[in-house]
Amino acid sequence: MRDLAVVLASGGLDSCVCVAEAAREFDLALLHVNYGQRTQARELQAFTDIADHYAVPSERRLVTDLDHLARIGGSSLVDASQSVETGEPDPASGVPSTYVPFRNAHILCIATSWAEVIGARALFIGAVEEDSSGYPDCRESFYRAFQQAITEGTKPDTEITIHTPLIHLDKPAIVKRGIALGVPLELTWSCYTEDSEACGRCESCHLRLRGFHQAGIEDPIPYKHGAN
Amino acid sequence: MRDLAVVLASGGLDSCVCVAEAAREFDLALLHVNYGQRTQARELQAFTDIADHYAVPSERRLVTDLDHLARIGGSSLVDASQSVETGEPDPASGVPSTYVPFRNAHILCIATSWAEVIGARALFIGAVEEDSSGYPDCRESFYRAFQQAITEGTKPDTEITIHTPLIHLDKPAIVKRGIALGVPLELTWSCYTEDSEACGRCESCHLRLRGFHQAGIEDPIPYKHGAN
Repeated sequence: MRDLAVVLASGGLDSCVCVAEAAREFDLALLHVNYGQRTQARELQAFTDIADHYAVPSERRLVTDLDHLARIGGSSLVDASQSVETGEPDPASGVPSTYVPFRNAHILCIATSWAEVIGARALFIGAVEEDSSGYPDCRESFYRAFQQAITEGTKPDTEITIHTPLIHLDKPAIVKRGIALGVPLELTWSCYTEDSEACGRCESCHLRLRGFHQAGIEDPIPYKHGAN
Repeated sequence: MRDLAVVLASGGLDSCVCVAEAAREFDLALLHVNYGQRTQARELQAFTDIADHYAVPSERRLVTDLDHLARIGGSSLVDASQSVETGEPDPASGVPSTYVPFRNAHILCIATSWAEVIGARALFIGAVEEDSSGYPDCRESFYRAFQQAITEGTKPDTEITIHTPLIHLDKPAIVKRGIALGVPLELTWSCYTEDSEACGRCESCHLRLRGFHQAGIEDPIPYKHGAN
């Protein structure tokens, strides 16, 4: 019998490749978090489709709400009165408006509590440092620090290791890795603003489309603008 | 004008003394978290009474729900089918059933996100290592690790420092410190199981009553059993 891994599965491209990486070594437990983001319903659909694809039983799927992230605000991703940046991320302009303050730490906490209760020994998160949008909670140094918090803050006999298999990949490499692992890329959703056809213009669409283009692979999801 | 501090205020004795410590140097923003614990309504009442006492304006009070801690389970504090330990904590028996897996990390995450959005420079939490019940997420080493996760996982210009003013005090010292700071001890609630009169028997009541007794001070809240 294989050990269990809790995988953070937003429904996006990166997290779906991360699910496939985890499945190579572990039995899967998939965690999805609604945090009041604009495309919440579409992302949940993508999560369900991916969980079905990997035949994850219902007791090993956990869908939770983090309502307070929307109440706390501070991000265009959860505050409809702010606009979402479009096009190429500009490193010089600092952390983008779509940064949800400390979001990944919240999600890691839920994953850690669940892992401790079900006896999972690994947490997988598809964070990407090098090709990301400058979110501080996507840096490898953050995951190293959080690993130490898990070690110190859980029971002495709990052993949970954070895995970030994509942390140093760029988007074309992630697309190629997804193809190599047979990932159902057509089930994933990355757009920050739309839920029937991807907008093709937000930073997330921009990074995704460029990644497929540079990998020489056609993105199988529908786009309103910008796709080939 | 003074800097803002986010203080984690459960409504218990320790967190109320912690509020008073924070108020010496900072303007207060008080955070309260419902996580499906048995005495949730009573603790929220204590929080409100304490916030009123310290004249904290409504926009600097945040009450949030962490429903998933109850759904994840793994603790007698949120699972009515498990019993709560009574009497003296026994260090040899390991982590007690009332440990809610990684709970304080969840609460620190909410505090960090809120602090980042409102520009608070400090987080206060009334965790107690030495006289605690052996919860791993009450150890100073956990807070040192979490501090590093905050530093790495928030924006470059965000500076948030965790303060744990009670971490090395025992309960009698906390009671005495509360008296010295004029803390409204009569407004606090610590019992894990009851909400009109404290049970006097759960570990939390046991520690509290012993603390007052050893401090030579009468506990002003009503008890069903065990008080002098």
